Formats: sequence, structure tokens, C-alpha cells
Amino acid sequence: MSRTQERNIRLLLEYDGTAYHGFQDQADPSLPTIQSTLEAAIAQICHEKVRIQAAGRTDAGVHALGQVVNFHTRASIPTDRFVPALNSVLPDDILVKRAEAVSPSFHARFDATAKTYRYTVDNRPLPSVFTRRYAYHVSQPLDVESMEKAAAYLVGTMDFASFQTSGSSARTSVRTVYSLEVEACEGIITFQVRANGFLYNMVRNIVGTLLEVGKGKLEAEAIPAIVAAADRKYAGPTAPAHGLCLVSVEYEET
Amino acid sequence: MSRTQERNIRLLLEYDGTAYHGFQDQADPSLPTIQSTLEAAIAQICHEKVRIQAAGRTDAGVHALGQVVNFHTRASIPTDRFVPALNSVLPDDILVKRAEAVSPSFHARFDATAKTYRYTVDNRPLPSVFTRRYAYHVSQPLDVESMEKAAAYLVGTMDFASFQTSGSSARTSVRTVYSLEVEACEGIITFQVRANGFLYNMVRNIVGTLLEVGKGKLEAEAIPAIVAAADRKYAGPTAPAHGLCLVSVEYEET
Repeated sequence: MSRTQERNIRLLLEYDGTAYHGFQDQADPSLPTIQSTLEAAIAQICHEKVRIQAAGRTDAGVHALGQVVNFHTRASIPTDRFVPALNSVLPDDILVKRAEAVSPSFHARFDATAKTYRYTVDNRPLPSVFTRRYAYHVSQPLDVESMEKAAAYLVGTMDFASFQTSGSSARTSVRTVYSLEVEACEGIITFQVRANGFLYNMVRNIVGTLLEVGKGKLEAEAIPAIVAAADRKYAGPTAPAHGLCLVSVEYEET
Repeated sequence: MSRTQERNIRLLLEYDGTAYHGFQDQADPSLPTIQSTLEAAIAQICHEKVRIQAAGRTDAGVHALGQVVNFHTRASIPTDRFVPALNSVLPDDILVKRAEAVSPSFHARFDATAKTYRYTVDNRPLPSVFTRRYAYHVSQPLDVESMEKAAAYLVGTMDFASFQTSGSSARTSVRTVYSLEVEACEGIITFQVRANGFLYNMVRNIVGTLLEVGKGKLEAEAIPAIVAAADRKYAGPTAPAHGLCLVSVEYEET
């Protein structure tokens, strides 16, 4: 296949993370990841090996409605052919929604200015078979109003160390949460968080803590002290991965 | 386990039909069906072999939000323990939502007075990974207004022979459709049909015909002549199974 000038291609992705060991390649290359599956599809289309960069390295079981990745290629395939070509070779739990050529310096992770995650809880008495892959089932009735009150304490610029699972390499645990909305509709409760960045497991640790409030095990007013402690052991447990979805990633104009 | 007087137990079920070869047992017993899976679960709980009757024998890949089945048992397990006991042994794509003891003569299929099915079409340009198991993806834009107009011709008591796939043993092909609603919301189009009974593949054949109207291949006004022909070859193709869901079954008070 003919080669042209190198392009930096940005893809918008949707995926069902159920069958994957997370976004990022694992030490054991036999474990399927979104990255390895997508890189194999790109290699098939571009006839060259590429390395993709993702905005959010979602964990095993986490889903995405709007993940963003980029990669550099010299393949001659027209930019507007990437979407149909990649979707024709990708498994049906990964979908490329958009492809565009961006500035050579664009980096999906480093250039992201904000990201939005959504966590879904199925709070009906029995776990629906239709939401079981995408929502965490909690049968105990949750007090939504208390969770909303607790969530409000987590909006702003602060040290989220209490909500960071160790093993992260972040230089600082200060982040700015622009919004944290709790919504309930017919027994489905969603927590939507928009922030300038997220620490390791931050959304799942925040949700796990808010669920303690919803169950009445923790007062909403205890949240500021948990933040001030800057110690993981004061916050609630980590909510399971399958309720989490990366909704969107924002960038400055490129 | 002790035995008590025989009870006729009615269950309300939800299931994701993706992994099953339909509701009803197949000639090849190695093919998993909802029936065989549920009968095995009941045998495990009741310590006796039972035979279940279903209101609607859904085809391979068809889902249910409100399937109804019944079976007779002499097991001593209290009626209110069936839901947790069965759910603890069933796979997570089958859920028992309710269990109750009903009149000894109750039969889930013969006593049903009406059933409601919903067919879901994903009419967005690309097939979402989150709806792919539950919605038929049609990328060509569909004219919802024309489909609504066509649907109105199919409400009432009439001979639905044009919408019946052969191989059915029904004595008459006259049925009463009480309602047939077409709704569109953010690219998801649903067809909800309530009738006193359904011929083999009737909903999928109706939807396949309405989609021809939606694509502009057939005029809405052609529907009465298709009904009058009483011949399967005049209606549209059979829409695929995975978009179909048995929503609810109605009975007289028992």
C-alpha cells in the first residue's frame, strides 16, 4: 500500500468493557484489551504497526461512550474511510464513532482538559438482566437526597487523596471537580462527574463513599472531614468496575 | 424433602435471550433453552422434575421483560421463597421477578387474554455497542410518520395471514390487535404491539413490513391490500429476532 505524509489520527470510541481486561495492554499479552484489539484492527487497515494513546486508561470491565485515542500513521487510507474500515474488522463490542486528522502534536491524554464519567446503580429490588453489565445492583433502598448533599461537598478544587487507590503515579492528588450530579429515575441512579482529571479509581471510590451515605452508614456532613484526612482509609469502599462508563473527553481546539 | 399438597406456581420472568435457542426445548437437548435452564433450576429447588408452560414461546434471540410460566409441584418450599431460591441458582441472564400460587387449572398460555411485545430499532448512523443485543440496527433514516400511518391500518380484528410465517399450527389467522404504537426518541424507534394473540413471527413480520414503509419502499396506504391478500408473500421481510421483547402477558383474575 502506498505511503503518504504522516497523519495524527484521533478516534472517538464506544465500547462495552465486559469482555476486556481494561484499556491498556497487560503484562500477559494473551489477555484481550481494548488497546490490543484496536491496534490489531488499525494494523489490518493501515498495514503498519501503530501505538495508540488513550485519554482515559479504563480498568477491566469499565465501559466507554466517548473514549478518545490518537495514533500516527503513514498509511494512505483517506481519513473519512477509517470509521467504516475499522468497524468492519473490529468485534461488535467496540465501535469507532468518528475519525479525524489532528495537529501532529495532539496527545489524547496529555491534551485533555476535562473528562466526564458516569456511574450507574440499579437500585431496584431485583437486578435487571438488561442492565446487569452496565449497572451495579444495590437492593437496599438508597437515600438520593443525602447522596446529593454529600456529592456537593466534593465539587471544587481540593486534595482527593482519600479517594485515590494506591499504586497511582500522579504527582499531585489535587483535582478540580466541576460537577457531580446524582440523578434517580425509576430505580436507576446515576452519578455523573466532570473533572479536569481523575486519580486512580477516583470515581469508583467517590461512588462507593456516596453509597455509604445513601445506605445511612455515613452522614453527608462527614464528607469534608474525609477529604481533609487525605487518607484512603477514611472514605468508603471502591464501587465495582462494571457500573462505570467514560462518557466524554474535552480538549482545547486543536 | 417433605411433600405438601400440589400447588400450581406462576412465575414472572425477565430474560436476555441472546445466549439461548429460544424458550422451548429443542430436538437437540444439548442446545440451551430458557425452558431447560429454568426446569433444571426448579428441579434443583423442588427436588422433583417439573414441566413448565409458557405464555409465549419466544424464538431464539428474543428477550422478555414479562414472560409468564406455570408449573405444578408438591415440593414444600414456601411460595415466597421461590424468587430468591430460583435466582440463586439461575444464570444471571434469567431473572424470576415474582412467584405466586394460582388456581390448579391456570395455564400460562391458554389463559392469557392479551400479550404485549416491543420491537426496538436503533436508527442511529452507527450501531451502539450498548443496544446491539436488544435493538436491530437500521442505518438508513426511517420516516416515522409514514410508519405510524401504516401501523394504524393494522389495529383491529382482521386476518393476519400475510404476517404469519408458515409452520404455525394456529387454527385461525384472525387476531385482534388492540394497539400498535410507533415511538421515536433520540434515534431509537420502538414498535409496541398489544393483541389478544400472535401468529408465528407476527410481530417480526409486521415490523419488517413497517420498516419497508419507513424506508420509502412501500406506501403506508398499501397495507390494507397486503392484509386483504392474506398471503405471506405480499408483506415485508421478517425483522431479526434480537430486536424483539415480550413485555407483558395479561390474564383474567385467577
